[in-house]
Amino acid sequence: MAGVKDAALGFFDSGVGGLTVVRAVQDLLPGEDVIYLGDTARLPYGSKSPETIRQFAEEDVNFLLSKGVKAIVVACNTATAHALPKFWENCPVPIMGVIEPGVEAVLADESAERIGIIATRGTIQSHAYQHALATRKRGLMIHGIATPLLVPLIEEDWISEEVTKEVINKYLDPLVAKGIDTLMLACTHYPLLMPVLDEILPGDVRLVDSATTCAERLKEMLEGTDLLNAKGGNGKLEIYLTDLSEQFEELAKRFLRRPTGKVRRAVLSAS
Amino acid sequence: MAGVKDAALGFFDSGVGGLTVVRAVQDLLPGEDVIYLGDTARLPYGSKSPETIRQFAEEDVNFLLSKGVKAIVVACNTATAHALPKFWENCPVPIMGVIEPGVEAVLADESAERIGIIATRGTIQSHAYQHALATRKRGLMIHGIATPLLVPLIEEDWISEEVTKEVINKYLDPLVAKGIDTLMLACTHYPLLMPVLDEILPGDVRLVDSATTCAERLKEMLEGTDLLNAKGGNGKLEIYLTDLSEQFEELAKRFLRRPTGKVRRAVLSAS
Repeated sequence: MAGVKDAALGFFDSGVGGLTVVRAVQDLLPGEDVIYLGDTARLPYGSKSPETIRQFAEEDVNFLLSKGVKAIVVACNTATAHALPKFWENCPVPIMGVIEPGVEAVLADESAERIGIIATRGTIQSHAYQHALATRKRGLMIHGIATPLLVPLIEEDWISEEVTKEVINKYLDPLVAKGIDTLMLACTHYPLLMPVLDEILPGDVRLVDSATTCAERLKEMLEGTDLLNAKGGNGKLEIYLTDLSEQFEELAKRFLRRPTGKVRRAVLSAS
Repeated sequence: MAGVKDAALGFFDSGVGGLTVVRAVQDLLPGEDVIYLGDTARLPYGSKSPETIRQFAEEDVNFLLSKGVKAIVVACNTATAHALPKFWENCPVPIMGVIEPGVEAVLADESAERIGIIATRGTIQSHAYQHALATRKRGLMIHGIATPLLVPLIEEDWISEEVTKEVINKYLDPLVAKGIDTLMLACTHYPLLMPVLDEILPGDVRLVDSATTCAERLKEMLEGTDLLNAKGGNGKLEIYLTDLSEQFEELAKRFLRRPTGKVRRAVLSAS
């Protein structure tokens, strides 16, 4: 008999960047089915106000709940920063975000002291990362900067272009000047920039993203709530986007690094 | 007695760029009241699919109709390109877009032969400008390119930065190589880039935007439908945005080049 353990995991993001988290989860928990929602019709979330982000995130969660998911991952930094505390109060299934795992990944290296954070304007202005880091460890130097041009550059597929390097340099120069030892990529899009960041940054700056740690924390959450699916590999993946276009389907493949299967259109409704 | 001539004109855009059109209309028709809607919660429209753009535009039009406007200007190139033909069939008040005026502004110089068009991906892919130009005059050379990074650069206020020039050069080099004599700025955001474009482009390339011609065509439309408000200056302006933020209010002032008054939040509903 199919029980709640067999239900799918739900993920959502403003776009397709959250598929970097799905990829890490599929690697660690290959037996789990996954339902992914990308709100491509209204992306980006990062430049919008906290109230609007919370409203959109609530509609995203309701969509996933309507699909019968057993747990939810907010695979979007901006939505985690502004909406997760609200969901903890009233979501009927376990729900987690990407910020706590990101902070944990940063602090996994005990020598980390001078932390740079790059993210959307919404995430930076929420101070969620700065706050989570500062409460975990005393004496950290934390420098967060909003880098709103990086998502459009990635979506334009200009990752290897000279201007992308210049934009990154312009954003990061002040962080490098402050002698950061760690750079947190606090947006699910940014892992695609790893090769460029590696080339640009001094060799002793550690680059951190939250996908792998997020998968590990999800596994713990499922174990703790007795929801882990014990069956072997071959979990199914269903991707829903609120706006379908060739460009998003292409990007989805790049983030997932494997075929996406048929992508469906989702229609959300206000709660 | 207040009649329909005293009702306001309605304008909408995905964001605040359409205020460049409002400014031109206020200069030409200072007695008209204006209600402006910017769908900042879901911007940009330019990267999304035709179906989604049409659905958003329909909700925008319904909002303006609910405010009792006497006529509507689609002050957004992407929405004009994909949704205007639909509205012509069933909008209960006169409605016009920015593309026909833009094309007219291009062809006002009879020597124009090699036309470059820069716009969002949605506008370029619609072929609306290319089609409108080609049906007006035979033998034109028309080159449209999508320049999706320009809106984020303008919104980041990096207009005078070196990287912005490099992005523009990268986009425009192929057009310049084709020997264009005219460049159509087919997005209401782009007039803010005029100083940079002037500096970058060869001196004999004419830059065209649609705002002034759009105001003239609107005046004709109001005269033709007996809706022109004959009273003198001091028309009121009401601005509604679907997402309020300091950043959008700042941008609105830059596009309007005058104080915006109190900006209100609009809540749209599906039709």
